[in-house]
Amino acid sequence: MREIAQFLVSQGCELVLDRQTQANAGLHEFESQDIEAIGEQCDLALVVGGDGTMLGIGRQLAPYGVPLIGINQGRLGFITDIPLEGYQSTLAPMLAGAYEEDHRSLMHARVMRGGECVFDARAMNDVVINRGPTSGMVELRIEIDGHFMSNQRCDGLIVATPTGSTAYALSAGGPLMHPSIPGWVLVPIAPHSLSNRPLVLADPAEVAVELVSERDASANFDMQSLASLQQGDRITVRRSQHRVRFLHPKGWHYFDTLRAKLHWNGGG
Amino acid sequence: MREIAQFLVSQGCELVLDRQTQANAGLHEFESQDIEAIGEQCDLALVVGGDGTMLGIGRQLAPYGVPLIGINQGRLGFITDIPLEGYQSTLAPMLAGAYEEDHRSLMHARVMRGGECVFDARAMNDVVINRGPTSGMVELRIEIDGHFMSNQRCDGLIVATPTGSTAYALSAGGPLMHPSIPGWVLVPIAPHSLSNRPLVLADPAEVAVELVSERDASANFDMQSLASLQQGDRITVRRSQHRVRFLHPKGWHYFDTLRAKLHWNGGG
Amino acid sequence: MREIAQFLVSQGCELVLDRQTQANAGLHEFESQDIEAIGEQCDLALVVGGDGTMLGIGRQLAPYGVPLIGINQGRLGFITDIPLEGYQSTLAPMLAGAYEEDHRSLMHARVMRGGECVFDARAMNDVVINRGPTSGMVELRIEIDGHFMSNQRCDGLIVATPTGSTAYALSAGGPLMHPSIPGWVLVPIAPHSLSNRPLVLADPAEVAVELVSERDASANFDMQSLASLQQGDRITVRRSQHRVRFLHPKGWHYFDTLRAKLHWNGGG
Amino acid sequence: MREIAQFLVSQGCELVLDRQTQANAGLHEFESQDIEAIGEQCDLALVVGGDGTMLGIGRQLAPYGVPLIGINQGRLGFITDIPLEGYQSTLAPMLAGAYEEDHRSLMHARVMRGGECVFDARAMNDVVINRGPTSGMVELRIEIDGHFMSNQRCDGLIVATPTGSTAYALSAGGPLMHPSIPGWVLVPIAPHSLSNRPLVLADPAEVAVELVSERDASANFDMQSLASLQQGDRITVRRSQHRVRFLHPKGWHYFDTLRAKLHWNGGG
Repeated sequence: MREIAQFLVSQGCELVLDRQTQANAGLHEFESQDIEAIGEQCDLALVVGGDGTMLGIGRQLAPYGVPLIGINQGRLGFITDIPLEGYQSTLAPMLAGAYEEDHRSLMHARVMRGGECVFDARAMNDVVINRGPTSGMVELRIEIDGHFMSNQRCDGLIVATPTGSTAYALSAGGPLMHPSIPGWVLVPIAPHSLSNRPLVLADPAEVAVELVSERDASANFDMQSLASLQQGDRITVRRSQHRVRFLHPKGWHYFDTLRAKLHWNGGG
Repeated sequence: MREIAQFLVSQGCELVLDRQTQANAGLHEFESQDIEAIGEQCDLALVVGGDGTMLGIGRQLAPYGVPLIGINQGRLGFITDIPLEGYQSTLAPMLAGAYEEDHRSLMHARVMRGGECVFDARAMNDVVINRGPTSGMVELRIEIDGHFMSNQRCDGLIVATPTGSTAYALSAGGPLMHPSIPGWVLVPIAPHSLSNRPLVLADPAEVAVELVSERDASANFDMQSLASLQQGDRITVRRSQHRVRFLHPKGWHYFDTLRAKLHWNGGG
Repeated sequence: MREIAQFLVSQGCELVLDRQTQANAGLHEFESQDIEAIGEQCDLALVVGGDGTMLGIGRQLAPYGVPLIGINQGRLGFITDIPLEGYQSTLAPMLAGAYEEDHRSLMHARVMRGGECVFDARAMNDVVINRGPTSGMVELRIEIDGHFMSNQRCDGLIVATPTGSTAYALSAGGPLMHPSIPGWVLVPIAPHSLSNRPLVLADPAEVAVELVSERDASANFDMQSLASLQQGDRITVRRSQHRVRFLHPKGWHYFDTLRAKLHWNGGG
Repeated sequence: MREIAQFLVSQGCELVLDRQTQANAGLHEFESQDIEAIGEQCDLALVVGGDGTMLGIGRQLAPYGVPLIGINQGRLGFITDIPLEGYQSTLAPMLAGAYEEDHRSLMHARVMRGGECVFDARAMNDVVINRGPTSGMVELRIEIDGHFMSNQRCDGLIVATPTGSTAYALSAGGPLMHPSIPGWVLVPIAPHSLSNRPLVLADPAEVAVELVSERDASANFDMQSLASLQQGDRITVRRSQHRVRFLHPKGWHYFDTLRAKLHWNGGG
């Protein structure tokens, strides 16, 4: 971390560390701030970590419009696409202005109970409603923009953004979605009805999911925060007015990332 | 047919029959024209038949911007949603101006061979590239807007509009797509690579598919016209500048049609 | 219930009620016993209820070899296939000896912790290992007959009998299995690896699943009993020495049940 | 090839070449025979090539009960599991009697037309009935052991052995099947009905598939021989009385092959 910090300074950057990072890495020679202050002051955020870290920081910085670059220490991720090894040669031209910009939509979810909001979270990947371990299938009533879509009996439901389409939604049988699609996908988890398929929606104003059955269930937001649900709870998901800005090396294409991550080699 | 014609006249419509329909039904007391002249003169086209008929007429009328209403004699379709029985009570208010309008995108596909276009077709549902019966898998090279996406070995590939997402693409494992999505889905047919999944694209300028392998293959357009392919052929699919306009009874919602056609009953 | 009881007596049967049923229905004019005593004394068990009830009674009676007939009050099930309406005309010839016999295998599962068995259950449908709601994917190590098969990261794993192949396993993407197959199917739930597919095993001596990751997880047996799991727990599943005997009306075929339940009509 | 031949002689084997191989490789210093004579005389067949070659030779040698060993020049296959590089150290102990034996079932298929057999083939992987490129879905009527199972509208149907479950059937969505399962799997290709799923059968005496619709269709046997079909044709598939014997290095397990070929690494 110190080396990366020194590299940024050598490139003429004014550097502010996230407080947590400073504490973990012991880099006391640099200024630090909390994420909100970073959002207000900085022109660029550099995240060193995996996709999960990037999701968390991305959600926090979205209101400030600060773009993010992700450096990955391990296997490259879907959104952290600069390898730690040799990062200098990739970062230098980006800092000089040669990059691709890629915008991701953000969801704003609420858990409504008796007309009141009892939980509130943003998600960049997905909002997941799931049955509890002790119960069988849940019954969910789904409305899109106030119009009844269906009642589904299933293990759960994933509402995913294009960014989330390569995460949990993919394991549950959902399609890949190009990040530029102004829409979301609903992916049922182990649906009882065999004709219940993933459904791609075009930028709905609101997806509302009501827990019809009296069963133990919960809602997860990017698999990073969790709300317990009660019968009659209504989870509403709207597009956040903010979006997340990612920067990639010049020449980056989404399909190159897909091909590498899904092991589609040249020969198919 | 005569009864429907008389009903339309009784509602104050000036009626022009399609020549083919007139010949089949023997309705010589009405004027008839070919489809192109109907496109130029008429304010509304009423199609009596199934989804297949509606696809064919829709493709032909798209350049003229004439809206279509579908009356179905058998089981209701995804796009022909007015039952023949009791059609009068549904049609009368629509003719009086109470309807929902629904726009569908159209694809324009070309087969390019040695730089020349050897086949040209529009499609409202899908463009399907398929191996021949005597051959094993084909290898397809896919480019999106000029950028390499992947080489795939498979039985074939479906490029489907949202309208086509409930047709062949659904049988092959593709997602449902709301008609308002400005995009298409690529659905591989029996892909050799298990990580090859349906991919939703946001309104690409051009999808190009090249037949890499020296195998017997063909391209189908709405499963209604067919081109034989040769090694090196390149099928390009672009969004047509035209779109198809469907009219539905007031209060119609796409989800109601999905629910009925896919047998999602209230209880899930 | 009284009517059915009287019908059985009229057919020359000696009737013993399950104590619970007697208490619920208030049929005090008939003898009652607990299930074990019924298993020891009776030649036939008649179950009035749904598939879930039949599973429970089937597991209990399996050690005694008593055959079961299922009468269904609601929609017919996969294993309770005699409708309440008009049951007399179906039952009478069966009681007289005209029936089809159908044997189902039973699983015996144990949760092993530090070499000791901490939970023990039989299952006719499935043994399901599932992540908890607060955790992401679990990592499971699977061994078949003592040989390492794979480590899987997933939401969970279903070990299903052919009987269970039409239950939860089907929703999770597993194949249908004819009841006469001497084997089980492993169905991964939302597996991280896209090449992780359902796997049909030929009557293994033992399937062992170890919870590798330090995550909240549980095991369900026929979705009717539940064990909480700890890291390092090993769930072993063996074929029970007992099997369940179902009787069906003369001329019954498994495929007729599949066709009816899955709405495969004659026309496909 | 000469080197392998000399190695076998050095191990004390009497070597007979297949005539075709001799012609291709120019190994005129060795004796050669046609496959049938090899089947009658030899104790072991060594196949150098890929899975496709092994299927072909396996079908031909099955009547003679000669076991096969497969040496693979390229990527290892599911059934040709000895790499060319360093084959000596693997083969030597096998020739000395240290091996695992693995039996695969074989299908015997016939195309019946007007009561007569017009085509006849054996298959180790699969019998595939497929629509032609110019036609839409075919309608197939399926009977198992003379009992009606279903009418299906689809692109086609795969009847696969456990050996074939890792080939085309897997691409079409079928389950993996352990080779020791005494049964087959029916995998529908792009079925119109969404509740139409792969079905595992326990060693049926006969699967019969009738081409109901008047459509262009064909039947493929191991994708190596092909029969054109006419409306009313009936394809019957029975278990051959012969089976194929494969020999593997001592310690070989089927799951190791699955793990390697499907890229299930240790970490899942």
